Amino acid sequence: MLMSDIETPIHEAMSADELEARLRAIGEQRYHHRHSFQLMLQNGELNRRQVQAWALNRYYYQSMIPLKDASLIARLDDPALRRAWRTRLVDHDGEVEGEGGIARWLKLTDGLELDREMVVSARRVLPATRFAVEAYLHFVRERSVLEAIASSLTELFSPLVIGQRVSGMLKHYNFVSAETLAYFEPRLTQAPRDAEMALDYVKRHAERPDQQQAVLEALIFKCQVLWTQLDALHHAYVAPGHVPPGAWDGDAQTGTS
Amino acid sequence: MLMSDIETPIHEAMSADELEARLRAIGEQRYHHRHSFQLMLQNGELNRRQVQAWALNRYYYQSMIPLKDASLIARLDDPALRRAWRTRLVDHDGEVEGEGGIARWLKLTDGLELDREMVVSARRVLPATRFAVEAYLHFVRERSVLEAIASSLTELFSPLVIGQRVSGMLKHYNFVSAETLAYFEPRLTQAPRDAEMALDYVKRHAERPDQQQAVLEALIFKCQVLWTQLDALHHAYVAPGHVPPGAWDGDAQTGTS
Repeated sequence: MLMSDIETPIHEAMSADELEARLRAIGEQRYHHRHSFQLMLQNGELNRRQVQAWALNRYYYQSMIPLKDASLIARLDDPALRRAWRTRLVDHDGEVEGEGGIARWLKLTDGLELDREMVVSARRVLPATRFAVEAYLHFVRERSVLEAIASSLTELFSPLVIGQRVSGMLKHYNFVSAETLAYFEPRLTQAPRDAEMALDYVKRHAERPDQQQAVLEALIFKCQVLWTQLDALHHAYVAPGHVPPGAWDGDAQTGTS
Repeated sequence: MLMSDIETPIHEAMSADELEARLRAIGEQRYHHRHSFQLMLQNGELNRRQVQAWALNRYYYQSMIPLKDASLIARLDDPALRRAWRTRLVDHDGEVEGEGGIARWLKLTDGLELDREMVVSARRVLPATRFAVEAYLHFVRERSVLEAIASSLTELFSPLVIGQRVSGMLKHYNFVSAETLAYFEPRLTQAPRDAEMALDYVKRHAERPDQQQAVLEALIFKCQVLWTQLDALHHAYVAPGHVPPGAWDGDAQTGTS
């Protein structure tokens, strides 16, 4: 199924630097740093319930990233590349219990007084969150290795959001702290390192026009995965009266499922 | 991954009739006949652009149903059951070019003056539509045959929407006609016939508590697939300014992609 709405098919191969420029232009236009919910989050325009909903749903995305990365490692022939990609598993799962990005994200949901069992169960996650995240998992398992690696390139643009998100949240929300936002600080160095490695791979391996087209479409797809999650949060929790049946509704006892 | 937010796990097996009652209660609560966008559609509260967006996105769902059904047939050991399920392929794909549910849905998009190539390409479909529909395809391919069949049981409830949808659209919208709504009339007999067959299978094969739980969760999942598509339409096309990058934006030249 065509995952992209890209207008102009590529008929002649671009240089690696032209390809990088096209990739960066896609991020500038489609990465979720432009999304209304992201802007409201960093500008202090969300209430506690809306920040809780974001943290709850984003946890599901975070929790699936190691499965995505392991699915990719399982498809790589080159031990060096598997080793390089393995650092992502370490970053997210840690070396021991309580370490790693997923554990740090739980500090945020704990700090927001969301019941940890409810968060980890994903029982109250928006169906749209689940569908988007699973689309990403299936993409990495089913598309070419080149496309799977290219779909990680949204990390090139994470500096566009992480810094402002942390400073904005600390400035505007008295219910978050530097400790509850512990997830983000390591990402400021991890994401660029990972993105550079993936970008280098893509620039070296996407030589034919069809490969370059597939790489651009993979990044567009991944931007859609992120954007769709914020659309669903905005619809369910900013516009009143649109929480889907069964989803977390921000009731007083946020713990209870 | 847990697809359901169902509260109370089933510890003791229900009778087949109790199971049917639970299934019908889920439909009453979660089928999209309760969705705000569905109510606006049948009550004449949508403008032409919004009806176009619904028809465009719903086409993608329709176009994937035969792939879903063929994936299920491919997993059935019983020739009689394969024959029975095969009627769904005939209903949607027809016997010859221009027949069947998909071709009839194109009469609607043609009547709404949507460019047929743009519609069929799915290039302008909302990413959330694609993710939800693909989640349904993967569910039918990857879950048990019992769950896959149970996920079709939303058809039990389609009489709750089709009649009102057609009469409401004909009454309120001068840009639709009985001919452009030709898709729906055969569904009034096809859907109940298919649903009864699936319900009979589920009632005979879901005997253990875990099987009955899985069947209820399969129907909840499918209700989420339908509900999420209307959430995405509502967010993108009813609330102003939320059309995702690359999605159809209802510009004057609705044809052009």
